[in-house]
Amino acid sequence: MKVAVLGAQTTKFGELWNNSPRALLKEAVSGALEESGLKISDMDAIFVGNMLSGILGGQEHLGALVSEELGVSIPSFKIEGACASGGLAMHQAVLSIISSYYEKVLVVGIEKMTDHKPEETTSALMGAGSDEERAAGATFPSLYALIARAHMEKYGTTEEQMAAVAVKNHYHASLNGKAQFTFPITIEQVLNSPCIAAPLKLLDCSPVSDGAAAVILSAESFALRNKKQNVKPVWITASQVATDSLGLAQRESLTSLKAVVSSSQKAYQQAGIKAKDIHVAEVHDCFSIAEIIAMEDLGFYHKGQAAKNIFMQKTRLGEKLVINTSGGLKASGHPVGATGVKQVVEITHQLQGKAGKKQVKGANIGLTHNVGGSGATAVIHILRNI
Amino acid sequence: MKVAVLGAQTTKFGELWNNSPRALLKEAVSGALEESGLKISDMDAIFVGNMLSGILGGQEHLGALVSEELGVSIPSFKIEGACASGGLAMHQAVLSIISSYYEKVLVVGIEKMTDHKPEETTSALMGAGSDEERAAGATFPSLYALIARAHMEKYGTTEEQMAAVAVKNHYHASLNGKAQFTFPITIEQVLNSPCIAAPLKLLDCSPVSDGAAAVILSAESFALRNKKQNVKPVWITASQVATDSLGLAQRESLTSLKAVVSSSQKAYQQAGIKAKDIHVAEVHDCFSIAEIIAMEDLGFYHKGQAAKNIFMQKTRLGEKLVINTSGGLKASGHPVGATGVKQVVEITHQLQGKAGKKQVKGANIGLTHNVGGSGATAVIHILRNI
Repeated sequence: MKVAVLGAQTTKFGELWNNSPRALLKEAVSGALEESGLKISDMDAIFVGNMLSGILGGQEHLGALVSEELGVSIPSFKIEGACASGGLAMHQAVLSIISSYYEKVLVVGIEKMTDHKPEETTSALMGAGSDEERAAGATFPSLYALIARAHMEKYGTTEEQMAAVAVKNHYHASLNGKAQFTFPITIEQVLNSPCIAAPLKLLDCSPVSDGAAAVILSAESFALRNKKQNVKPVWITASQVATDSLGLAQRESLTSLKAVVSSSQKAYQQAGIKAKDIHVAEVHDCFSIAEIIAMEDLGFYHKGQAAKNIFMQKTRLGEKLVINTSGGLKASGHPVGATGVKQVVEITHQLQGKAGKKQVKGANIGLTHNVGGSGATAVIHILRNI
Repeated sequence: MKVAVLGAQTTKFGELWNNSPRALLKEAVSGALEESGLKISDMDAIFVGNMLSGILGGQEHLGALVSEELGVSIPSFKIEGACASGGLAMHQAVLSIISSYYEKVLVVGIEKMTDHKPEETTSALMGAGSDEERAAGATFPSLYALIARAHMEKYGTTEEQMAAVAVKNHYHASLNGKAQFTFPITIEQVLNSPCIAAPLKLLDCSPVSDGAAAVILSAESFALRNKKQNVKPVWITASQVATDSLGLAQRESLTSLKAVVSSSQKAYQQAGIKAKDIHVAEVHDCFSIAEIIAMEDLGFYHKGQAAKNIFMQKTRLGEKLVINTSGGLKASGHPVGATGVKQVVEITHQLQGKAGKKQVKGANIGLTHNVGGSGATAVIHILRNI
């Protein structure tokens, strides 16, 4: 299977109090359409990734809302899977093209999180967790803190090593004009930042963000004949999803996300590659520990080996395998429904050689890793430019 | 294209205070699996239709929740499109099978609406409407009342004719042990019931309901070799979706739903049939006027002709074209995310000859018509047994 990415764009991510969700939507979509050389009227269907519009804004039915806002009346769907909503929308869009039902589709991820009181947003995000976790008053920082403690205990992972994830991602974000945080930070700053849920400090955590991201996908046959604007298609060669329990208490392990292991193994098989063939990846670093575990679960490092390699800057721009060139969720920002789509935008630009200062030289194969909740949903996409 | 329905079941619909959402889910799914002769471990993916779990219950991420609850860890997706969530979940499931990504899939629609204060539920349902409608304090009865007034003005439709829709659907529901209201009503009872939003009375309106519905779908090739339990597959020969504006004010017409016209015309074309070939249909009668307009938009009657024919009992059990044998949303109940799936359950049973007292004799071709909001989303499925 081969599905083409013809255009991809994000808005700036951040605390965008002056931008309505509709304005963010239009900005991302028009950017992606412009790259593709296509018009909205060329689209056959729309897939919207969003988590919180209902809980926080009382607005559901976003499929029809987005279609109307863009001035078309085509089939339009909202897909929700917590922070993996964007990745799941990508997956459904890919399937819809492979089914030959739709030829050219728009995928848009969007979230507006900063217009609400922080405690409302925190509570709404727990809609991704289990009943027990919500009843116990858990928050996602506290759940990932448990995961971090278990990983430290089992593999000797240190707070300095976790801090190195945030430092690297802030460095990458400093090269990304659309990132929420474009300032570099140091290990000391992370370690000295306020404790959120020990051992996680403020600078171990991804922020609350607004933003939208959009991609234009098409069938292979269309992409091959759509030469008018010198669009260099990037090809999605794998799209895989797996699930696990909503809550941590039901998991076999706290130091590995089973859904990531199984979906990534299927994705490598589908794409006919191995983990070592990946040049650049966007991984779901909602907390610094999450990137460390992702590097292991994705097969980039053996268990217990990722943290020290990240600390030695082996996944930073300039190295062989570069992780989160956008700045990741940590520094580029994490508007939850947009994140899975933004990851595809970043990898697309990397494989097209359009990533600017953060370009990974010679990047031909990339991967995106989008996680919902504390690992209940995992979505992997593999993209290549050849 | 041909996708098989191998099993289909609903829970009872109603005010089910003793049944948790998880219990409803399991009951519908185990019923559908039993009919199909398959086990949950045979499934490759799950598509969940739900609208209100986030707004009313603070619980999102239902894909993973349902997968976990059923004891599997397969790809699982929540699709939301207001009251068309179930129909859209069906559509995505059909596409996923045609894409050959998944061979056997479970579709489940679920909603738990009665555990909340009525004003909370009413407000949550307006999440399907436009900003302006919500800001103006509109409710769905008021929006459909505007539609009813326009239809009465343009075509001379009467309150008695609208009442006849409810009378017929209560009669059908009296033959359906799983319906919310199993008592027959009279035209006089409808006309004398309390006014909700003139000209709509209480008995013109579908109720607030709890319930779940599930279907097991498979690829044609699997269905043809799955002979072990004498399962008589029913075939989905068309699945089409269209959208329109969220709000009424932006519509070209108040007396026709454009999304229904376009999606049904595409569906007839895809199935290679005409409206007159349909023997039995489940249509989205959220209010009595909605069934009248559906009969016209689906091509069963010319504009302005449906109401008088319904009043003359031409769409009642025993006639050539029978509408809403389940009792429809009006009398079978309307747990919003479940409705689009329940419609497919009813048509499947009709085409399998398993509809009991409400069986339409010789029914070979059926249609489902699921609408989101006041017509912003429309989903049409056509099924046949030959």
